[in-house]
Amino acid sequence: MDENKKISSAVIKRLPRYYRYLGELIEGGVQRISSKELSMKMKVTASQIRQDLNNFGGFGQQGYGYNVQYLYNEIGKILGINRTHNMVIIGAGNLASALVNSGDFAKRGFLIQAVFDNNPTLEGLGIGDLKIKMMSEFSDYIKNNDIEIVVLTVPRQVAKDVAHIVVDCGIKAIWNFAHTDLNLSDDIIVENVHLSESLMRLSYTIANNEIIN
Amino acid sequence: MDENKKISSAVIKRLPRYYRYLGELIEGGVQRISSKELSMKMKVTASQIRQDLNNFGGFGQQGYGYNVQYLYNEIGKILGINRTHNMVIIGAGNLASALVNSGDFAKRGFLIQAVFDNNPTLEGLGIGDLKIKMMSEFSDYIKNNDIEIVVLTVPRQVAKDVAHIVVDCGIKAIWNFAHTDLNLSDDIIVENVHLSESLMRLSYTIANNEIIN
Repeated sequence: MDENKKISSAVIKRLPRYYRYLGELIEGGVQRISSKELSMKMKVTASQIRQDLNNFGGFGQQGYGYNVQYLYNEIGKILGINRTHNMVIIGAGNLASALVNSGDFAKRGFLIQAVFDNNPTLEGLGIGDLKIKMMSEFSDYIKNNDIEIVVLTVPRQVAKDVAHIVVDCGIKAIWNFAHTDLNLSDDIIVENVHLSESLMRLSYTIANNEIIN
Repeated sequence: MDENKKISSAVIKRLPRYYRYLGELIEGGVQRISSKELSMKMKVTASQIRQDLNNFGGFGQQGYGYNVQYLYNEIGKILGINRTHNMVIIGAGNLASALVNSGDFAKRGFLIQAVFDNNPTLEGLGIGDLKIKMMSEFSDYIKNNDIEIVVLTVPRQVAKDVAHIVVDCGIKAIWNFAHTDLNLSDDIIVENVHLSESLMRLSYTIANNEIIN
């Protein structure tokens, strides 16, 4: 991969989908697939797929198709999931439980190592195999453990303050579920999950369909 | 709004953000804002904002700015959140608990009316104020209640089958948290929340930053 090449965010959004589809193909015992077949399955054009993959050097042979396992592994490397990522969660609510108890993340090497909260009545209670720690321990914990990603599942009103504590501890990547922008400096990587906005897109489509029909 | 005009998905993705920012401005007591100020806050260009809003007739006056409350209400109408939407969840796990216990959705008129599961040991247990119902009751429940959106928080492996049951009951809109595509007919509206893909975009950015630095 050309290290200085700027990959468009649209391509970056499609890569995890390719990865997921290829994973499903592997589960189904498929060893080789043409860009045409892959495109029909994914509902994008075959030339789109070829273009996307050419950003990373191209993995197919004309008329011969892609080796599914090889392509899966290569896209995994591009996505940075060919190694483990240690994470901690701040905010020990139901969403934290859902994330801890989902096997999906660990399967891809995203390991939730600890859950923090500032509510003393939660201290030591269990979420999955983890015991909830207090925020007063957070800074020391980060110093002594190799944590790469902090997951914020705190209420919107406190998210900015908590994010600043996280960044002050040296964390560079945040997966943010709080429904607000964190406004951190540009060297901090923030991936937002705004569920309310997803729901509004759904209701927009409902409203718009009703107008058209 | 021109009923036949096709609005791009990029605009539709930005609308909920506008709505959120305007809501925060209202909370902060701001009554009027220029597209320039709004653009600085939102990190898009002022002309982008004007273009986006012009899709819906335009709400601003040159040199005078937008009336925040008016714009908020109008965008709310466009997003279809000027009325309530009744929802039910299928899959009574931690994610369902998180959704039921979040006040965010009800505040915007998305009301979770029931939670279903097929595990008999969960029958009648509480999630928030709701008692878990069995899937055997689903079809009758949908017949007798005005439900618009079904939220799928079931495991990936059963999601397609459950989605077909949902559609057979006449539901037209699905908010899908299962990490698979449902492959339903085109008249069914599906909004996907693929958390694993969000996390992979995060790790892509981490990997890519490491290469560059």
